[in-house]
Amino acid sequence: MVKSKVFIFRKHFDGLPKPGDLELVEEELPPLKDGECLVEAVYLSVDPYMRAHAPNLRLDTPFIGSQVAIIKESKNSKFPVGKYITGMFGWRTHSIVSDATIGWPSMPTYVLPDFGKLPISLALGALGTPGNTAYLGFLEICQPKSGETVVVSGAAGAVGNQVGQIAKIKGCKVIGIAGSDEKGKWLVDDLKFDHFINYKTQNVDEALKELAPEGIDCYFDNVGGEISTIVLNNMNAYGRVSVCGSISGYNDRSTKASIVQFAMVGKQLKMEGFITGRWKDKMLDAFRKNLEWINEGKLKYKETVTEGFENMFTAFAEMLQGANIGKAVVKA
Amino acid sequence: MVKSKVFIFRKHFDGLPKPGDLELVEEELPPLKDGECLVEAVYLSVDPYMRAHAPNLRLDTPFIGSQVAIIKESKNSKFPVGKYITGMFGWRTHSIVSDATIGWPSMPTYVLPDFGKLPISLALGALGTPGNTAYLGFLEICQPKSGETVVVSGAAGAVGNQVGQIAKIKGCKVIGIAGSDEKGKWLVDDLKFDHFINYKTQNVDEALKELAPEGIDCYFDNVGGEISTIVLNNMNAYGRVSVCGSISGYNDRSTKASIVQFAMVGKQLKMEGFITGRWKDKMLDAFRKNLEWINEGKLKYKETVTEGFENMFTAFAEMLQGANIGKAVVKA
Repeated sequence: MVKSKVFIFRKHFDGLPKPGDLELVEEELPPLKDGECLVEAVYLSVDPYMRAHAPNLRLDTPFIGSQVAIIKESKNSKFPVGKYITGMFGWRTHSIVSDATIGWPSMPTYVLPDFGKLPISLALGALGTPGNTAYLGFLEICQPKSGETVVVSGAAGAVGNQVGQIAKIKGCKVIGIAGSDEKGKWLVDDLKFDHFINYKTQNVDEALKELAPEGIDCYFDNVGGEISTIVLNNMNAYGRVSVCGSISGYNDRSTKASIVQFAMVGKQLKMEGFITGRWKDKMLDAFRKNLEWINEGKLKYKETVTEGFENMFTAFAEMLQGANIGKAVVKA
Repeated sequence: MVKSKVFIFRKHFDGLPKPGDLELVEEELPPLKDGECLVEAVYLSVDPYMRAHAPNLRLDTPFIGSQVAIIKESKNSKFPVGKYITGMFGWRTHSIVSDATIGWPSMPTYVLPDFGKLPISLALGALGTPGNTAYLGFLEICQPKSGETVVVSGAAGAVGNQVGQIAKIKGCKVIGIAGSDEKGKWLVDDLKFDHFINYKTQNVDEALKELAPEGIDCYFDNVGGEISTIVLNNMNAYGRVSVCGSISGYNDRSTKASIVQFAMVGKQLKMEGFITGRWKDKMLDAFRKNLEWINEGKLKYKETVTEGFENMFTAFAEMLQGANIGKAVVKA
């Protein structure tokens, strides 16, 4: 009998998730049936969307999330033993997977191609959903042109840092907004962002006026709320805003901010929210392009790795408070 | 010597405009030069945009606004005596106009075509900028399809009522939001809106869920703020939002509301702000189509007329508080 450790969602989050909201249990897995395989988690993902979706999740079921796992046993030739697989298997060490295992459109179940010298954890980051989100969410909605000025909030996160790097590849001037000078140093020194604003210590409005006196053409929004209204108020006519998330309000749905409509009308802005799954026909293109840029040295990646499946909750809570730089993952 | 009464902008508005903020003076006009004509105001417009733009206006100059005037004297063959003309001449009874008189792209200076039996005041309403705004701002951005559900805020105003009627012509289900049951009665009984919500006496969220259980596809936003966030939260996937104004915040720029980003992402909404002048090549089409619909009886209009140039300020302040039904105009 194979036993799996599983985090069960016990209590809806009130504000920042608390340790007691999830319970770590052990469960026995049934024997494999034909068409199934047994997989063991190698890397697990913690992402902001988990907090956003939590109010819609059922209690007393495993908490949601994607992972990279290794196939340990198989009764399905599509899932060869020893290969790596990724999918929305939840917060668990062992899972039984079959063709019927349902993922999300943006996070399908698939056996990983050979990553060569690159770490397989990138399937959860730069070469996974965050990478596809950055590529498609930015390019499809913002339609950036060379020479334009781009602002990214949540800039040191998994998606944000990649958006900024793609904007640089496309010839844009890039300003990142994040919450620590350590993050800023990484963005500017390593990733070659043009500028960085620490929203915790600087006046974002004044900083934008100083760093982008020409105005902002594109804004990739991971945070929502007051920072986003400030960015909108500094945009140029016909600016484009891609709304990926609103982490500033995930812990408090009643969050209020100065209204966006003044800027929307005055500058004739276009704002669009998206879920990456809408572009499922373009997902493979995004993966290939990100891989090409990584291999060419044009796109860098960074991971904040927490060791130990038992520490998933801690990694999750820390990520929600901005402790991670780059992609937050847990090594099982 | 011709004398003109003029309202001079003396003091920037703090909240709702106060009578002392504008001063009514008399000034002498110089004799006409070649190329000029003298016009006398017949109808003057009071519109929400005047409040929105006020912070950008220079003090001690005439307050902005469009009017329909009659040409009294002329030294320019393009401006024949006795014809009606419209333009951004400001809050004044008499003006000197020439080819160099600069309007806004959305409100150019032009000699009116023959309106036949229709009142010339419509050049400030259903057949003027509000009409063009309704036609272009709604159809170009919302791209409504027959059978879709459309919500209009500020629904009994000059632009809002026409948007709702155009949506009905296009085969949509239309819900109007406004601030009095008298307005609602007009929208539903006369203009054939499907439903009306009085935001002052009803819970807008509950009312929308009851009246549009199928969800909202298009939202034409005149008000911004909390009502708009509530509408967004009730929209369907891939809904379209046309942002025309944000009158809820004109008297207080620091207005806050629940953030829009949850709905923007969750429903993958597209929101776009606009200024009608962007479609200057389509303005004549809009005018012709609105005129055709009026002549066919498909499009109705209503005006709230205040008598007397001296009462412009009162008409303006009342309009900002929602006292008007349909287009607010002043008969000089």
